Amino acid sequence: MSKNRTTIAQIAAEVGVSVPTVSKVLNGRADVAEATRLRVEAALTAHEYRKPSAARTTGANASRPRLLDLVFHEAQNLWAQEIITGVERTAGAARVGVVLSELGGSHRPTQEWMDDVSARRPLGVLLVLSDLDDVQRHQFSSRAVPYVVLDTQGTPPADVPTVGSNNWHGGFIATRHLLELGHTRIGVVMGPSDVLCSRARVDGYRSAHDQAGIASDPGLVRWGPFEAPSGYRHALELLSRPDRPTAIFAGSDYVALGVARAARELGLRIPEDLSLVGYDNLPITEWLNPPLTTVDQPLREMGSLAAQMLITLAEGGSPASTRVDLMTELVVRDSTARPATV
Amino acid sequence: MSKNRTTIAQIAAEVGVSVPTVSKVLNGRADVAEATRLRVEAALTAHEYRKPSAARTTGANASRPRLLDLVFHEAQNLWAQEIITGVERTAGAARVGVVLSELGGSHRPTQEWMDDVSARRPLGVLLVLSDLDDVQRHQFSSRAVPYVVLDTQGTPPADVPTVGSNNWHGGFIATRHLLELGHTRIGVVMGPSDVLCSRARVDGYRSAHDQAGIASDPGLVRWGPFEAPSGYRHALELLSRPDRPTAIFAGSDYVALGVARAARELGLRIPEDLSLVGYDNLPITEWLNPPLTTVDQPLREMGSLAAQMLITLAEGGSPASTRVDLMTELVVRDSTARPATV
Repeated sequence: MSKNRTTIAQIAAEVGVSVPTVSKVLNGRADVAEATRLRVEAALTAHEYRKPSAARTTGANASRPRLLDLVFHEAQNLWAQEIITGVERTAGAARVGVVLSELGGSHRPTQEWMDDVSARRPLGVLLVLSDLDDVQRHQFSSRAVPYVVLDTQGTPPADVPTVGSNNWHGGFIATRHLLELGHTRIGVVMGPSDVLCSRARVDGYRSAHDQAGIASDPGLVRWGPFEAPSGYRHALELLSRPDRPTAIFAGSDYVALGVARAARELGLRIPEDLSLVGYDNLPITEWLNPPLTTVDQPLREMGSLAAQMLITLAEGGSPASTRVDLMTELVVRDSTARPATV
Repeated sequence: MSKNRTTIAQIAAEVGVSVPTVSKVLNGRADVAEATRLRVEAALTAHEYRKPSAARTTGANASRPRLLDLVFHEAQNLWAQEIITGVERTAGAARVGVVLSELGGSHRPTQEWMDDVSARRPLGVLLVLSDLDDVQRHQFSSRAVPYVVLDTQGTPPADVPTVGSNNWHGGFIATRHLLELGHTRIGVVMGPSDVLCSRARVDGYRSAHDQAGIASDPGLVRWGPFEAPSGYRHALELLSRPDRPTAIFAGSDYVALGVARAARELGLRIPEDLSLVGYDNLPITEWLNPPLTTVDQPLREMGSLAAQMLITLAEGGSPASTRVDLMTELVVRDSTARPATV
């Protein structure tokens, strides 16, 4: 524990700079030479320096704005919108401002972004489908900035709080529904294969087959971005095969939109000729033609819970749990039916 | 101009409080008794007090975080998402953090929100489909917090910068397209009648009729929220009439989704039995069944331009124009065709 007692003065002496310089680096100020900043960072990391207390001033006497940083790898879709709404409501009720950032598709924040966040000293940071490397992790912990990872795409260390949903279960119930309707050749157009939630959903798909005693065909599983064009492209190919699947499990509602277009172009009616299950239960899905059967992922609740966890951590409290998966449910609408050949 | 030279000291003397107290009120600090705060606010308003300079510290030496407040009356839809993306990209490039708030459907911010914004002292505030009352306007101008109104729902004073789009033109081109296809009975399911953009779109609808020499039937125009259930409800009624319209112009893409469901339930095919035009051109519309003909409202560009305007104002510059309407365009897809009876 003595490591954690390293003071700013000791760091300053070791690096050969002034105490205010170390303090500026900790606060993300830009008026420090880059070479100096890197040397100070190195010393902070080597000593595993942490600010004396993680508890922040709160309430009426706080002179610093109460902010929470919410960062997405990509935010321009309805999926992100649902999470934002959940975070916004919980943060708003606690009078905490939500600062929104988007990493333009990257899963790792830039140093520039890290510096800006350090400079505004938020109560904490909420990372969605993105994660920090070890140096970045330390940069936040040394500044007593707690963070929570939402719907993790990798496997963060055990001490990183996360909020997700049960992806394996989602894949399982989507597939079981199709098997129960009598489908035996079920295609999958999943998200990226290097994202853990995609893997978990496909594992659920396989387990549902195992449980039903029906062999799953690995040749029917496709991977790609969680977007409509991927669903369209893969479905055109899958549905043009002579032994085409009679049902498709799409990795997201957006992917399902692409699958549906491919089916239309091939003259296949949903659900008469093709059953289709989406994933996420975005609010728009009940208004689609036909209304989409999909796996409900409680995105608003996930956002809300993650924000609450972060505020609790920032105020020095201990959340009841820091690794939470919310449950997924199947919402049956009109895009699934018994296969025509049964 | 002498009014603007009122000092904090004069305000303090007049109210009978200390200079730091006036300063606290200006900075939105909570540690001032409510009665005192109100008296200070009243004096600031009476003297039309303004901070000496609107130009803010920027660049490397700024010790205050660079933030921009973005506030929606309601943010949980794709329409808001497009604006957020535009604002986020421009602000991100300028390394300005975007603080997102939602007013839960109200078009006027609460005093609590005003105080929180004053406390975090953003570079400026961007209001979407919401506006300030006179006291709130003064509260921002007295603190040198510039603001821009996006897609104004009312008629803000001439000195308030606004960014919108040409709604009249949008209504005009949507209707002209339908008239050119041969439709003569065109229904409208518009947004709320007390929102100016709704009014302008319906005026465009009427002018397109006038220009074509075809009488428009006021009995075919309906008003309601910009949401799918409103489209559904109104379309069920309009399409059940013996003299039903052969085309419907929907006030938003969400409204169009509701109209399409009503048509399906009544056994009407789109576009064979009913032509449908939406409004906004949300990214999802090209994936709908059938892909939707709609009016493109350049929401990302609007968000981006408004953010740029705000940053320019915050840095003491003068935007080339502070009242901008971007142009709307028609995007023709598969939901419109010649009427069956022609």
